[in-house]
Amino acid sequence: MNRQQLINEIFTKKTFLCVGLDTDINKIPSHLKNEEDPIFAFNKAIIDATAPYCVAYKPNLAFYECYGLKGMLAFEKTIQYIKENYPNHFIIADAKRGDIGNTSKMYAQTFFEEYNLDSVTVAPYMGEDSVKPFLEYDGKWVILLALTSNKGSHDFQLTEDKQGERLFEKVLKKSQEWGTTENLMYVVGATQGKMFEDIRCIAPEHFLLVPGVGAQGGSLQEVCKYGMTKDCGLLVNSSRGIIYASTDKDFAEVAAVKAKELQEEMAIELGNIAK
Amino acid sequence: MNRQQLINEIFTKKTFLCVGLDTDINKIPSHLKNEEDPIFAFNKAIIDATAPYCVAYKPNLAFYECYGLKGMLAFEKTIQYIKENYPNHFIIADAKRGDIGNTSKMYAQTFFEEYNLDSVTVAPYMGEDSVKPFLEYDGKWVILLALTSNKGSHDFQLTEDKQGERLFEKVLKKSQEWGTTENLMYVVGATQGKMFEDIRCIAPEHFLLVPGVGAQGGSLQEVCKYGMTKDCGLLVNSSRGIIYASTDKDFAEVAAVKAKELQEEMAIELGNIAK
Repeated sequence: MNRQQLINEIFTKKTFLCVGLDTDINKIPSHLKNEEDPIFAFNKAIIDATAPYCVAYKPNLAFYECYGLKGMLAFEKTIQYIKENYPNHFIIADAKRGDIGNTSKMYAQTFFEEYNLDSVTVAPYMGEDSVKPFLEYDGKWVILLALTSNKGSHDFQLTEDKQGERLFEKVLKKSQEWGTTENLMYVVGATQGKMFEDIRCIAPEHFLLVPGVGAQGGSLQEVCKYGMTKDCGLLVNSSRGIIYASTDKDFAEVAAVKAKELQEEMAIELGNIAK
Repeated sequence: MNRQQLINEIFTKKTFLCVGLDTDINKIPSHLKNEEDPIFAFNKAIIDATAPYCVAYKPNLAFYECYGLKGMLAFEKTIQYIKENYPNHFIIADAKRGDIGNTSKMYAQTFFEEYNLDSVTVAPYMGEDSVKPFLEYDGKWVILLALTSNKGSHDFQLTEDKQGERLFEKVLKKSQEWGTTENLMYVVGATQGKMFEDIRCIAPEHFLLVPGVGAQGGSLQEVCKYGMTKDCGLLVNSSRGIIYASTDKDFAEVAAVKAKELQEEMAIELGNIAK
């Protein structure tokens, strides 16, 4: 999916919600545990319930890999289900990969050829040759870690160099030599509040994938106040706040309610953009 | 495997070689392509040929994930084969994972419970909570990226802060608050030559996993001169230089020759340590 198609989806559906499919077998409703593939059964129900309210899905690879082949089969079935039934939804492989050039090339093949997904999250620590192989696919996206939502983000990402430039700022600047607003987004945690202002000084047009609204404590309004652009420029992710809002038989209905609540808040924010 | 066991293996076998199983279906000998599982068939032959000359194997996940379920099955069969036939070999999942705490916990489960491997490579960008979940397993190891072997390592890893401390040095120092010489190693590329001196000032006792000897141009002698400790303190990896030394029917024999050459050089280096 290219940038204009994504923007069209956002303004047509009046939402920039991404639903995170961090599906944990220990947290899904107990009645699903008798299904042949409980993880896929859970995802299918969540996807059907939330599709009208979101533009993207973000399965987190860790939650599938941890069950070995069985988990990866659930992952494959999930993305296949989205592609067949909701082909206009943007799919993010939240994998945080990154390795030397010839290895990153294999990871790019994995996510963009084997699975044919729209985007993958990538870690910047290893620099240019670890990121570039992912940027060589038309209509596919790198979502590069910039300023993450977790406590540990302060350990290295905020380190200032001699000129006072913080590491996440260096990542934002340097990576713009490798990719464009058409194939490169950044992860910026919703918990980082006013930092969005600083980020928009360096990356005024790039889409930002924003985790951390909900369970991690970030505010949608603050993210929009400081991070929204005339093209929206945001994909705001919620995982646990939607998919585990109920752990009973009504889990999918409650997930839909939670997704709809966020969508309605997002519609208001989008209404504030002159388009 | 704990530190003392690893040291014992190194001094008993007179080698600190790690063989990288970066198995690419396009590079393996053509006669193997008719096998039911060509990747596993190749790995099995390489493992049998090189086991006497190395103490560790390092399958690189990218090379397995890129074939989807089929690739992950080859990965599982490979590690199972090593564990059953060469149980004293240390296994490194070269995966370069790292995510927020609750997700890193799932990755740790993947590699340390589901696959029961000895160690996993981890990227430091997301800080403490992204690394710590991997450190909570007795006898298991985090191998944290510090100074990598690729060209892109210069983009961020060498950035100096206001006190002149480079990012990889900050990673080395900070991470020693989280782990010990018993559960934490570092990736330091062989291509970084004299940098090993600086690294040994900060991490005098930690084991270092050293890729980049061979195909990437690093020198074993230089690595040993600046990086070796009284306990050896090094696992030197070679992938392409061994596994693709011949692409003909004699690939395993030639791999054994190449591994043995490195082992003999390593025996000389180990001989220089008063033990």
